[in-house]
Amino acid sequence: MRAVDLIIKKREGNELSAGEIEFLVQGYVSGEIPDYQLSAFLMAVYFQGMSFTETGILTRAMLDSGDVLDLTGISGPFMDKHSTGGVGDKVSLVLAPLAAACGLTLPMMCGRGLGHTGGTIDKLESIPGYRTDLGAQRVREILGEVRFVIMSQTEAMVPADKKMYALRDVTGTVESVPLITASILSKKCACGAEGFVFDVKAGSGAFMKDAHQAEALARSLVNTAAGLEKTAVAVITDMSFPLGRTVGNLLEVYEALDCLRGRGPADMMHITLRLTAYMLVMAGICGDMDEAEALADHKIQDGSALRLFLRNIELQGGDPDTLKERLEDSGYTPVRAKKTPLPAETDGYLVGCDAYKVGLASVLIGAGRARKEDPVLPHVGIELCVRYNEKVKRGDPLLFLYTDGEKGRDEALALLADAVTVAAHAGEKRELVIGEVQQI
Amino acid sequence: MRAVDLIIKKREGNELSAGEIEFLVQGYVSGEIPDYQLSAFLMAVYFQGMSFTETGILTRAMLDSGDVLDLTGISGPFMDKHSTGGVGDKVSLVLAPLAAACGLTLPMMCGRGLGHTGGTIDKLESIPGYRTDLGAQRVREILGEVRFVIMSQTEAMVPADKKMYALRDVTGTVESVPLITASILSKKCACGAEGFVFDVKAGSGAFMKDAHQAEALARSLVNTAAGLEKTAVAVITDMSFPLGRTVGNLLEVYEALDCLRGRGPADMMHITLRLTAYMLVMAGICGDMDEAEALADHKIQDGSALRLFLRNIELQGGDPDTLKERLEDSGYTPVRAKKTPLPAETDGYLVGCDAYKVGLASVLIGAGRARKEDPVLPHVGIELCVRYNEKVKRGDPLLFLYTDGEKGRDEALALLADAVTVAAHAGEKRELVIGEVQQI
Repeated sequence: MRAVDLIIKKREGNELSAGEIEFLVQGYVSGEIPDYQLSAFLMAVYFQGMSFTETGILTRAMLDSGDVLDLTGISGPFMDKHSTGGVGDKVSLVLAPLAAACGLTLPMMCGRGLGHTGGTIDKLESIPGYRTDLGAQRVREILGEVRFVIMSQTEAMVPADKKMYALRDVTGTVESVPLITASILSKKCACGAEGFVFDVKAGSGAFMKDAHQAEALARSLVNTAAGLEKTAVAVITDMSFPLGRTVGNLLEVYEALDCLRGRGPADMMHITLRLTAYMLVMAGICGDMDEAEALADHKIQDGSALRLFLRNIELQGGDPDTLKERLEDSGYTPVRAKKTPLPAETDGYLVGCDAYKVGLASVLIGAGRARKEDPVLPHVGIELCVRYNEKVKRGDPLLFLYTDGEKGRDEALALLADAVTVAAHAGEKRELVIGEVQQI
Repeated sequence: MRAVDLIIKKREGNELSAGEIEFLVQGYVSGEIPDYQLSAFLMAVYFQGMSFTETGILTRAMLDSGDVLDLTGISGPFMDKHSTGGVGDKVSLVLAPLAAACGLTLPMMCGRGLGHTGGTIDKLESIPGYRTDLGAQRVREILGEVRFVIMSQTEAMVPADKKMYALRDVTGTVESVPLITASILSKKCACGAEGFVFDVKAGSGAFMKDAHQAEALARSLVNTAAGLEKTAVAVITDMSFPLGRTVGNLLEVYEALDCLRGRGPADMMHITLRLTAYMLVMAGICGDMDEAEALADHKIQDGSALRLFLRNIELQGGDPDTLKERLEDSGYTPVRAKKTPLPAETDGYLVGCDAYKVGLASVLIGAGRARKEDPVLPHVGIELCVRYNEKVKRGDPLLFLYTDGEKGRDEALALLADAVTVAAHAGEKRELVIGEVQQI
């Protein structure tokens, strides 16, 4: 078998066999197939796509390139959730302890933010001491006690994805549905979940701006998972507005605490409860979605989800006492952050808040990173004071910017002023959940 | 400027600017842009194509990567011919001395055979002593005396093409019309011709099997040349049958001698005269095609084209005496070759002789090479005894195979038996010239 023949076979739109895909992945990881052949292959996949069968084979070949999480002695049902990334998306921080409180086990491998989007690990690391680089033994201990753990990817897990993603990043082959699917699923499968919920974002603040592209990715994720004998469902949600009230690492942890105390904003709670309910139904813990949402709501009301979250923070090395102030009071003015309001210029209704621009503004002030190697600032961020279609008066604060001194403040304010739209009349009703894709 | 952004720009189907294409070519040649980015870019070009303007810029950027031939002191008009490659295609061997005899100057850089097709340099090197690696001074001396020279590509000429072609060869990006165009034209321009004729082959023995693909390449060559201020015409010719009577290096030199003595087969003479006539009209030596074909025919009849060929052989280090036997007699049985006939199995008409299979058979016996580094045998080859639609009787030889002992003989005979078709009735008239593309 020669790599060039497989490149041509895919270039011509043909389906590759299991042996052929395994040859490419194994050869690439071992170094026998050079970068320049794989990048040409990936570009051919970008144009010709892959069937769900091929995508499943690719996923498994990538998964087989490294170690899988050892869950010996841990009881399930094992479930996991993945979001394709957005602005203000702190759903995992709420969903993980909530689902755990409902009886699911969630060994979650999460990522860092990149570009205009945030990442779960950056958010949790804004809690002093919180660590996600955990040994396998420690992962099992944490799962044994609180049923959920947040890990970063280790060198030994799915090395094929690490190497392929680095190549895709510099060769214009990131935006391919089958390649995105295999990258996501190989990492999720490595952690041992039996079922997944996917939150596929669409809109300006998402990687897939277009709802049709988002639906194609949702179908690919769900159908490829089916081929790998995993249950899965995907919810396509609107990311033209930031999710929730805050954007920024510690600010989002604070908002997650609000959610776990029953004080979360409606959009955050709606998505979180729906995704949690799907997992409970897929795992057989609840018979239907209504029963599942009621169970999850109960676990918020009785404080058990919050307790698991705080205990997880301790177990992963963080100091829950640093969150005390927020738990006793809903205010937030971190000592280290400078607070600046953005006032409304006219009376009217907030009808637009471009998630992409808000995400970029958060990068300008240091909450996100433009390049992988950049650090993030935990305390900076944006607090949205007005929700979609809410009435505002001229001079009312639309949002607050929390900055590290003056760093990035003026550019961020200009970008945010451009991001928000106040109109004389209210806009049409906004649908948060655009679509759902289930296995057939 | 970043290479990845240009890859994405092309991937999205956008036109690249001169500065962007130059950045890619210069960066690749200097080593700043790695193979894995260029191969992804080339695959994006494969799918999205390039405009004639972009192809022209690419050609010039590749040309500017190295030296051009110094033609100081040599008088024109400078013309050149290129064939996209076929089986039994020895047109250059006849056309070059013939056009020179008519008053054109031809500094020709030629290639070796690869796969099922032959190459002009392999053919000429079957003459003992013939050399094509000539210094610039020697090239000028030969041009000064016989008006045509056959050179191989030097390291210093169009290094961008050398490096890019090697990459395309292993990344499935050979079969791209703009990339083929830029590769051909950059090398042709480096030799200083003011005008070109292209023989674009279509059919089983060609690289472009399909006439539509061949026409697309012909249009790209002619229109891109126009943008580079070169006159050009392309003739699309049928390569479903081998061209002429022979396939194999020395056998083809012998057939070229026949052509130059007015005894060539009709198909060879038709294409050679037409291409030569186009060059004469483009250069302004003749007013129209009829006058030009008459002039060329005269230069065959008076022996001047043959004399230039024999003198060129001397000047390029070859020994014309080794061709003596052929010049005195039309027979051919090289001492070193074993002659085996392939007899007709039935009475009928020869209606098929698959050029691709004949080409592969010639590789099996050592006339061609499967890999670039393989040597070729000068004396082996195939002599076709029967032309299209000629009547044959059972037992008549359809062709003779000339082999080096038994090497490859039985496999080649089996392949050739499969390549030929003898039918009860004659086939339809075969058009040798399928189309012509001229500058507007």
